[in-house]
Amino acid sequence: MSQYKTPLRDFQFVLHELLETSAVMQSCGRDEFDRDTIDQVLSAAGQFGEEVISPLNARGDEEGCTLRDGVVTTPSGFREAYQQYIENGWSALGCSTEHGGSAFPTVVENAVSEIFGAANMALTSYPGMSNATYVNLRANGSPELKAMYLPKLASGQWAGTMCLTEPHAGTDLGLLRTRAEWQADGSYRITGSKIFISGGEHDLTENIVHLVLARLPDAPTGVKGISLFLVPKEIPNADGTLGRRNAVVCGSIEHKMGIHGNSTCTMNFDGATGWLVGDAHKGLAGMFVQMNHLRLGVGITAIGVMEAAWQKSLRYANERVQGRAPGSGTVSGADPILLHADVRRMLLTQKASVEGLRALALWASQLIDLSHAHPDAERRRDAGALLALLTPVVKAMASDTALESTLTAMQVLGGHGYVRDNGVEQHVRDVRIVGLYEGTNGVQAMDLLGRKVLADGGLRMAGFIEHVSRQAEAQRDQPGLQEFAAPVVELAQRLAAVTSELVELSTGDVHAAGAASVPYLRLVGHLALSHVWLRAVQVALPKSGSGDPFYASKVATARFYLRRMMPQCLALCEEIRAGAAPVMDPSILLSTP
Amino acid sequence: MSQYKTPLRDFQFVLHELLETSAVMQSCGRDEFDRDTIDQVLSAAGQFGEEVISPLNARGDEEGCTLRDGVVTTPSGFREAYQQYIENGWSALGCSTEHGGSAFPTVVENAVSEIFGAANMALTSYPGMSNATYVNLRANGSPELKAMYLPKLASGQWAGTMCLTEPHAGTDLGLLRTRAEWQADGSYRITGSKIFISGGEHDLTENIVHLVLARLPDAPTGVKGISLFLVPKEIPNADGTLGRRNAVVCGSIEHKMGIHGNSTCTMNFDGATGWLVGDAHKGLAGMFVQMNHLRLGVGITAIGVMEAAWQKSLRYANERVQGRAPGSGTVSGADPILLHADVRRMLLTQKASVEGLRALALWASQLIDLSHAHPDAERRRDAGALLALLTPVVKAMASDTALESTLTAMQVLGGHGYVRDNGVEQHVRDVRIVGLYEGTNGVQAMDLLGRKVLADGGLRMAGFIEHVSRQAEAQRDQPGLQEFAAPVVELAQRLAAVTSELVELSTGDVHAAGAASVPYLRLVGHLALSHVWLRAVQVALPKSGSGDPFYASKVATARFYLRRMMPQCLALCEEIRAGAAPVMDPSILLSTP
Repeated sequence: MSQYKTPLRDFQFVLHELLETSAVMQSCGRDEFDRDTIDQVLSAAGQFGEEVISPLNARGDEEGCTLRDGVVTTPSGFREAYQQYIENGWSALGCSTEHGGSAFPTVVENAVSEIFGAANMALTSYPGMSNATYVNLRANGSPELKAMYLPKLASGQWAGTMCLTEPHAGTDLGLLRTRAEWQADGSYRITGSKIFISGGEHDLTENIVHLVLARLPDAPTGVKGISLFLVPKEIPNADGTLGRRNAVVCGSIEHKMGIHGNSTCTMNFDGATGWLVGDAHKGLAGMFVQMNHLRLGVGITAIGVMEAAWQKSLRYANERVQGRAPGSGTVSGADPILLHADVRRMLLTQKASVEGLRALALWASQLIDLSHAHPDAERRRDAGALLALLTPVVKAMASDTALESTLTAMQVLGGHGYVRDNGVEQHVRDVRIVGLYEGTNGVQAMDLLGRKVLADGGLRMAGFIEHVSRQAEAQRDQPGLQEFAAPVVELAQRLAAVTSELVELSTGDVHAAGAASVPYLRLVGHLALSHVWLRAVQVALPKSGSGDPFYASKVATARFYLRRMMPQCLALCEEIRAGAAPVMDPSILLSTP
Repeated sequence: MSQYKTPLRDFQFVLHELLETSAVMQSCGRDEFDRDTIDQVLSAAGQFGEEVISPLNARGDEEGCTLRDGVVTTPSGFREAYQQYIENGWSALGCSTEHGGSAFPTVVENAVSEIFGAANMALTSYPGMSNATYVNLRANGSPELKAMYLPKLASGQWAGTMCLTEPHAGTDLGLLRTRAEWQADGSYRITGSKIFISGGEHDLTENIVHLVLARLPDAPTGVKGISLFLVPKEIPNADGTLGRRNAVVCGSIEHKMGIHGNSTCTMNFDGATGWLVGDAHKGLAGMFVQMNHLRLGVGITAIGVMEAAWQKSLRYANERVQGRAPGSGTVSGADPILLHADVRRMLLTQKASVEGLRALALWASQLIDLSHAHPDAERRRDAGALLALLTPVVKAMASDTALESTLTAMQVLGGHGYVRDNGVEQHVRDVRIVGLYEGTNGVQAMDLLGRKVLADGGLRMAGFIEHVSRQAEAQRDQPGLQEFAAPVVELAQRLAAVTSELVELSTGDVHAAGAASVPYLRLVGHLALSHVWLRAVQVALPKSGSGDPFYASKVATARFYLRRMMPQCLALCEEIRAGAAPVMDPSILLSTP
């Protein structure tokens, strides 16, 4: 099976040439992130990904996790690799220096996440979850909790989880029943059962820190009565050493389609000791800090898996000789399938997908850096607002596209893609989860259209569309840019019109938003992607005559996206405009057989 | 896990009301297939599917097949179920009476195939392959081979396989190396290795009949030098009893993404004894009888799996209570997710997909009956020509759509769809193979566009488009039909234009066909589907005011398809018109990293 190779050149293009990370960080008063420093981190991550964890990926899938007497054993090699991961400082890469972290910008941290996700999604999802726990606690924890837990989470000595879902409460967290009772010493007793807890139990760390949503006795019903608690597996002594075992156990693990190396646990809290994080009844807002962080993070993981699958199909298409390609001039025998137009179509669809989404996701990641660190408050606010808009788009668009793209990679391999040996089918099974967890992609779409577009009458979206449109209009008259800028302007107009229609429609039709949300998110995704491609062409076109063929390839890939993939937007607009009536028609039988 | 229920009502609608099977068979001189007879077969098949083989489906996936010392053991329960299958006469359903078959029309046989594919794809693929072997041998075998093998294949006492693929020869069979040498007694010695042989070895039958492609010593190179041989696992004595073991053994079995219960074998022929089927060097044409039969068959299996997944998601959406649906009036608590517009969108997409493709695939099946049995030679020829056009469309469109649809079913279940218990993820893994085997869907698309459209300058396709268009125009002025007929007329015009453009373009651009073929097939598929939906509305609309809510549901489902799914054609046309240049651009780097 062919192994993953880090696409260093493309990361450099996005981070240095497109996003100008060093300059942007300098404008935020952080001038230590020069090009070399970033490149060294990428190279080191690439080496770790390629040499240490990628070779464990198939084995992790075959062995999976096992549960015995409440103890989860991860696949062989995972423990050692995790040890190396934290010793190399990867868990601390983006953490604050006060907690022992390296305080790298999120845009670099997320590029590294893509590499790790590509190399071994199941393994690196453990520290990914810990990192999200770190981010939540840093934002919402009391000084005491922070002092005790953040350094251990940053170092990776302890792991973290997010305990939200219950059997009857998934998307609708307002239904959750886990209870929290106040104790005399200021702690709480947590009782209830949580399901689908990623990394809820494992053998990688000595302690696991659960962030748990539960209800206090005086809680209002619904989502306004949910509080957030920290529940450690081992209750630490004041000096940070491990004290007694807490009353939280793993009751079972799921048998899943993929990510077999990542444990998915039922966690039973039986009067477990916990501490309140943030204000009582305000736990959901606190949890959303972590959730939004994770949404971008899992989207980026999906991009990594898509890259890994694309590489496998590209290598196969170079090596597999089959059929004479029209015009190849081969007299007898056959050509590499790479020369067949339909195979190229499949390869380029993957290439354009992964490169476009990588640029988009890292742009969104840079908005996190700007929203935290830019000296100008307005720039910080604008970056935060745009990030809120783009987060559900990146999560849903990346995961949907990654699923399609890994399936396309399998199609390139034909029957050879369906057998396990070539590794592509594992990528499909692994990446499938991303569209389902951290809020299904349907939930992302309602978050975008409901909360972020309709809630302010389309104001913020109008601003984004105008920003994209203005940039494209400015490029339209530049030599060679017309073909790339014109479709962006056109799509911006379409999206503006569709958005206005939905704003109007949704005042009178309660189903208008729900019936439109998924195609609407895709439409916004294409606007963002076409915007990113236009910026890529702006950078690459002047260099495309140079000796480095990378730039001409980038321009040609942009053209493929615009000409062969973006037409999808026509269908999306029509589908949205067909409205809710065909969807809600009560005469359609939807009772169970 | 919820089990499959046979959609009897929809089968009856398609077979009796839409396709008028009894009347059509009567016109072919077969008046024994009245409505009751057909319904009894469907009911019996449904009962067998639901009660006997559906309960074995998950177990078959978990256990898989095992190989020890050349012997393949199928999952527990498969042997007994297979015995029951052949005792019930299912293997003989469509076989000729002279071979002990029941000679049922293909349209009924294929409806039954859908039921069995839905209930247990892995198990019923064994007899499916035997049936294709039967069809091939009936068309191409010598009287002696037919007399010996056809009754045993019809009864299911012996199984059959198709041995085409070699490690270096998949799509390009011209590259195959398996050799055949003439023996003094008129038989041949076959030597070579075949891979991906479905049911190549198993424990369901006492004998397995392999149809093998190989080269004779004097064979021309390429596809024009391939001959077809029958190679039995056990060489029968003249009286049909088993004689000596032939020199063909299973060397290994594949570990695959899905259909774990169906063995996929490497078959090693080491001077095995075989007999020529048909003429020397003409084996590929002979094999294509079987291949075309299988292409329709596997498309229909995909429709079955899609139905099974759709039922699971529908049941889940009825039972799962989560979130308050807008306008539902629920004061506290939550509603079944069925009431949420986006969930309905997902359910209806599945419903429209499975019902539309079922009608299309059974229409194509009826063309087989007409092409064989209609007394009018011109009707037979026309039916055959249309069947040739529709076969790749059904195979590719059904399998692509089934994959999307099972993934949508999983999306409805959210995280509960990703775990194995609910059975949906198995449907996804199982159905994924259909787009890859019996010619990948890319091959189907080139078969359609290259061989069946461009080869005659678009003549046959123009005839089909005109037929569809004329019917739709005739309906356009009927009360209530305008909204259903107008989009068909419009799509017919688009497809006619695109086809003409491709006919012209392909004379000058060798890549024009390859770059357009996949979206072109989908476009043709939508024309065929919209045509079928219009016919369905014609039948259902007059009855939609009746007491049976089935008809109003059918009309509303047609509307959903036309309004919310068919707009996809806009994107397909644009993608085709973007042409080959963006695909073939040599500046795009496609070398391996």
